[in-house]
Amino acid sequence: MILGFAESAHQAQALAAELGLAHASVDLHRFPDGESRLILPQTADRHVWLYRSLDYPNDKLVELLLTARGLRGAGVERLSLIAPYLCYMRQDMAFHAGEVVSQRVIGAFLAELFDDVISVDPHLHRISELAQAIPARHAVSLSAAELFGRYLANEKDALLLGPDEESAQWVSAIARVSGLDYAVASKLRSGDKAVTIQLPAVAVAGRRIILVDDVASTGHTLAAITRQLLAAGAIEVSALVTHALFAGDALEVLRQAGVSRIGSSDSIPHAVNVVRLAPLLARAVREMKLVEKCG
Amino acid sequence: MILGFAESAHQAQALAAELGLAHASVDLHRFPDGESRLILPQTADRHVWLYRSLDYPNDKLVELLLTARGLRGAGVERLSLIAPYLCYMRQDMAFHAGEVVSQRVIGAFLAELFDDVISVDPHLHRISELAQAIPARHAVSLSAAELFGRYLANEKDALLLGPDEESAQWVSAIARVSGLDYAVASKLRSGDKAVTIQLPAVAVAGRRIILVDDVASTGHTLAAITRQLLAAGAIEVSALVTHALFAGDALEVLRQAGVSRIGSSDSIPHAVNVVRLAPLLARAVREMKLVEKCG
Repeated sequence: MILGFAESAHQAQALAAELGLAHASVDLHRFPDGESRLILPQTADRHVWLYRSLDYPNDKLVELLLTARGLRGAGVERLSLIAPYLCYMRQDMAFHAGEVVSQRVIGAFLAELFDDVISVDPHLHRISELAQAIPARHAVSLSAAELFGRYLANEKDALLLGPDEESAQWVSAIARVSGLDYAVASKLRSGDKAVTIQLPAVAVAGRRIILVDDVASTGHTLAAITRQLLAAGAIEVSALVTHALFAGDALEVLRQAGVSRIGSSDSIPHAVNVVRLAPLLARAVREMKLVEKCG
Repeated sequence: MILGFAESAHQAQALAAELGLAHASVDLHRFPDGESRLILPQTADRHVWLYRSLDYPNDKLVELLLTARGLRGAGVERLSLIAPYLCYMRQDMAFHAGEVVSQRVIGAFLAELFDDVISVDPHLHRISELAQAIPARHAVSLSAAELFGRYLANEKDALLLGPDEESAQWVSAIARVSGLDYAVASKLRSGDKAVTIQLPAVAVAGRRIILVDDVASTGHTLAAITRQLLAAGAIEVSALVTHALFAGDALEVLRQAGVSRIGSSDSIPHAVNVVRLAPLLARAVREMKLVEKCG
């Protein structure tokens, strides 16, 4: 069974349909005092796949705790989390003395609740494998690059641009599938919002640019790159991101910077979703089931 | 050391002063995407007392997880939570099939993080001891009744009124210390906001009434009682509660119902706080230290 929550019932249902599994939603109510009440559907399944992206995560993490303990109490033996967007992956070291390395704490917490965790394009910096952050039985990190590459296959002559060197491998994978050129900028970040960008040494004047990134959070990075690209003569800048997080006024920030089109995967449900992750997630679920069955 | 958070730094500091312990605050920042960053103060203490009330709890629970794991990682051996207001104590059974009994799940979660938990007037219905909800080494439930009784000692001729039969013992303790008469109403609750009240069989016409309760959440219970009391001829209705939770427009609801004065303990920092819990909490901390030392 795929068990979802109301905010992404559509996505969870699509995944269940791909897999031929039953789908149900947790009945979630938030009381006026900020507490959550959860009613779980009855199931005879001993293996449950819980679907939930962890944007704006704190409420959701507490609700995952309640859900996981509730399901275990009801006899579920194997519990797998499908979280297309994972939270707390960016605080992967102590930037100040005494700073809590939340990636490690939240990763261990998820591994205590779930046997398996599947995610898409998690924002990993100083570690290479999701399993280093989440010590679950299986911690599977998928990439939206191939789906993005196919989605962009008709965008002839556009230049794909990644925001930083770390994105180079991912951007090149999108480029390979789509047949587009690509380049990556360099990014210097200080604090929540201050970002300095250095454009790559390729001509952008007269070109259509497609910015690709794993997540648009405050939007300040993509906005800054867009302004520089337009100042350098680019004729159009659009953006495609895996996770449409868009904290606060991020969409407005992007539009004011001159981003003409904005698209994303449906990892976080949003009006800008253009790429469905269900086929990618379904393949990962099938593979995990096969591994489980055949060793 | 008493370690607190900004929203209740004043209360944590007052407690530290009573005990002659050092006080520090966790440096907490919430990012625009809803994630929390915590920086813990350096300490050589092997036993840390963490002070935080758990109103609007989900963010705070995740931050307690981060804090507790961070402190353990830094070598803290004994970690005691002082949570004057405890969350999730009301969902103590499954009211519907499949409903998660969050009291049990959150209680177990707190017991995993902390060796000890101290709270004040937790809202326990179907269990008598806090330790049944929170299986920590020590789970101590304190009562604000004595402090409330002393606070009300000058309110001559007023009638103390508890909202339901369950409050009888607590209200009678306040009455004993204050020297006031008391009675209790009967309460029938259905859903979040629907409450039916039956006033006690005592004359209220011409009397000043002081409603006492453990928590004012939506305010609907106290508002309903107030309307009935005023309709029955009471000349003034005021309210004193342990926990000034006041979800949403609760204060407005109370004022519109005709509650003239509203007071509370400082378990949840609020403009209506009139009773300091520091002396009560300090006594509990001293006793726990003594038990620990002398067996």
